Amino acid sequence: MTTMPRARRCVWLSATLDLGAIFGADFRAHAPHIELVDAVTAAEDPASVDFALAWKPAADAFIPFPRLAFVSSIAAGVDNILACPSLPQGLPVLRVRDDDQARMMAGFAAWHVLWHHRSMGDYLAQQREGVWRRKLRKQPAREVRILILGFGHMGRVAAGVLSGLGYDVRAVARRAPDPALVPHGVTVEAGPDALDRLLPAADMVINLLPLTEDTRSLLAADFFAKLPAGAVLIQLGRGEQLIEADLLAALDAGQLSAASLDVFQVEPLPADHPFWRDPRILITPHEASEPDAGALARHIAAAAERLDRGLPVETSVDRGAGY
Amino acid sequence: MTTMPRARRCVWLSATLDLGAIFGADFRAHAPHIELVDAVTAAEDPASVDFALAWKPAADAFIPFPRLAFVSSIAAGVDNILACPSLPQGLPVLRVRDDDQARMMAGFAAWHVLWHHRSMGDYLAQQREGVWRRKLRKQPAREVRILILGFGHMGRVAAGVLSGLGYDVRAVARRAPDPALVPHGVTVEAGPDALDRLLPAADMVINLLPLTEDTRSLLAADFFAKLPAGAVLIQLGRGEQLIEADLLAALDAGQLSAASLDVFQVEPLPADHPFWRDPRILITPHEASEPDAGALARHIAAAAERLDRGLPVETSVDRGAGY
Ligand SMILES: NC(=O)c1ccc[n+]([C@@H]2O[C@H](COP(=O)([O-])OP(=O)(O)OC[C@H]3O[C@@H](n4cnc5c(N)ncnc54)[C@H](OP(=O)(O)O)[C@@H]3O)[C@@H](O)[C@H]2O)c1
Ligand SMILES: NC(=O)c1ccc[n+]([C@@H]2O[C@H](COP(=O)([O-])OP(=O)(O)OC[C@H]3O[C@@H](n4cnc5c(N)ncnc54)[C@H](OP(=O)(O)O)[C@@H]3O)[C@@H](O)[C@H]2O)c1
Repeated sequence: MTTMPRARRCVWLSATLDLGAIFGADFRAHAPHIELVDAVTAAEDPASVDFALAWKPAADAFIPFPRLAFVSSIAAGVDNILACPSLPQGLPVLRVRDDDQARMMAGFAAWHVLWHHRSMGDYLAQQREGVWRRKLRKQPAREVRILILGFGHMGRVAAGVLSGLGYDVRAVARRAPDPALVPHGVTVEAGPDALDRLLPAADMVINLLPLTEDTRSLLAADFFAKLPAGAVLIQLGRGEQLIEADLLAALDAGQLSAASLDVFQVEPLPADHPFWRDPRILITPHEASEPDAGALARHIAAAAERLDRGLPVETSVDRGAGY
Repeated sequence: MTTMPRARRCVWLSATLDLGAIFGADFRAHAPHIELVDAVTAAEDPASVDFALAWKPAADAFIPFPRLAFVSSIAAGVDNILACPSLPQGLPVLRVRDDDQARMMAGFAAWHVLWHHRSMGDYLAQQREGVWRRKLRKQPAREVRILILGFGHMGRVAAGVLSGLGYDVRAVARRAPDPALVPHGVTVEAGPDALDRLLPAADMVINLLPLTEDTRSLLAADFFAKLPAGAVLIQLGRGEQLIEADLLAALDAGQLSAASLDVFQVEPLPADHPFWRDPRILITPHEASEPDAGALARHIAAAAERLDRGLPVETSVDRGAGY
């Protein structure tokens, strides 16, 4: 027996994106019983609003809506919601866990690993010059030691894919993972001194950590100094985790040889930022992965259905831990 | 009980590469009982030569050595050896089956799939211009239909990796494969009309076929015409499988939108070839994958050990089938 889901109102809260324009059609297609409304419209009748969808909400965004059942990020990260001063105490915060997004992230990470390991940029340059030059005796993938920071929804899939491509893959998490989740050939370490042990043996570091008090400014001079000289950084987490001046200094010193950066302290990356013209840095505009819009609408619909059934909202976000 | 392997002589036969210089150190490290000698030295005492290592041997290369126990390619492909007029009838031909090489090939194939699917070249261009431009609402990988031509040592691993990244993967082989070898989510088809069924539903084609009578000139106008308009070709097999003029015509007609080419009719690709300056074509100089040099020496040593034990040489190459 299927019951009709209850009609619901969801207010979108964002100071940077028009979430109604971006996701409206997907909600109509995948969750037609959920009306996605902007904050001005919603504030006319706050009691009619059941829950919220948010991305970089304004500081006072939650004030008109004190009775929400939950707020969901449009993405995997919730740092920008937890940082919002008007977020009500105790309001459940949800994130999207989209397996397709995790695979998309793994592909993006693998592309950058291969770009650096196989020096793919050299081939593009050779083609521009019409030069045929082979690199006989390539470095085998098993000699490239990859450290993935974070072994969550994203890190796990990236670890499995890279290990399947023959790389020597380690990962770090806050707590020891369930062994059943660790792909064949991958080692995961946890605990306060894990990074001190792992960094000296990492030729490439892929950052997939959430932004928390512990990870803010983690990618800094002392972190880079523990890596072997010439290491590569692939930064896919959050811009606030990287001290950008320290990255440039580490590249100048040869401590790092190259970096792929998808996230930045200020986004869009300012036009006069030195990263743009640095040949050692590959820039993508926060594009590594995004949840499928249909998956987002279905995720919100699933949370709403629990409300219909009188069940508590399920969330994997621990506001104390910050992710 | 281990017995000392017998001292052996291996002649290298190549009109294009100095295999002694390339592999000598690896043989000394991994198979010190096998002496790798050039053809002139070997011809002074042909009876002392046990077997051969070859890559594009000259037409008469085998004439001085009528009593070899086997000849091995330095790579996965054996087309250039089978085509040699002086190859003795019935001489076992071996190829290298290196799992690391298969993973290397899978990574290279995945890099090109991601290059095209995620339009990674756009980001490189944007960085050159200092432009931050996002592509919101990216095409999900599951909507990208990938057809892998060949489901052998290379194709299988590529299929598993790409399926693990969320792509919709099909493959074609000559014979129906052992189901245990088919990765989760992948469909493999065989038989004479398999291509007619598969090509209309292939957004990207990855060629990993061996060069045989059946596959020579396969990638031609009639093949491209069966693909959906705007399809992408990733050509990693052998240059002789592609009619290069037909590729350019298909690109001009929009039947194909782009191509990644690693192998060519003539290698090195001639300096005046139109491919070099074609922005729709990505050129790599036959670099997709190579067996590890240590793996090659160990593979030859394993074949020699069977001779020591009086066993027939094992080979997966079927001279009738051509691979
Ligand atoms: N660039 C982009 O387009 C993009 C897209 C999506 C996500 N992201 C970023 O990727 C992050 C991760 O996403 P996810 O879905 O994988 O998150 P997740 O499932 O919450 O996993 C986070 C992982 O980080 C670990 N971790 C947290 N704090 C740590 C610390 N101080 N030291 C060591 N490990 C720590 C966690 O350890 P435990 O396992 O012990 O909890 C967990 O393994 C997001 O928060 C976001 O910042 C970026
Ligand atoms: N660019 C590079 O750097 C590079 C490096 C290595 C290899 N390669 C190329 O990749 C090729 C494949 O290597 P591999 O190790 O995977 O070879 P393999 O193990 O012999 O596999 C060949 C596959 O192709 C299939 N096949 C052969 N003829 C066919 C036909 N007419 N129609 C449909 N399927 C056909 C075979 O079908 P069955 O399974 O039914 O036998 C098999 O699945 C090599 O021969 C070489 O040309 C290129």
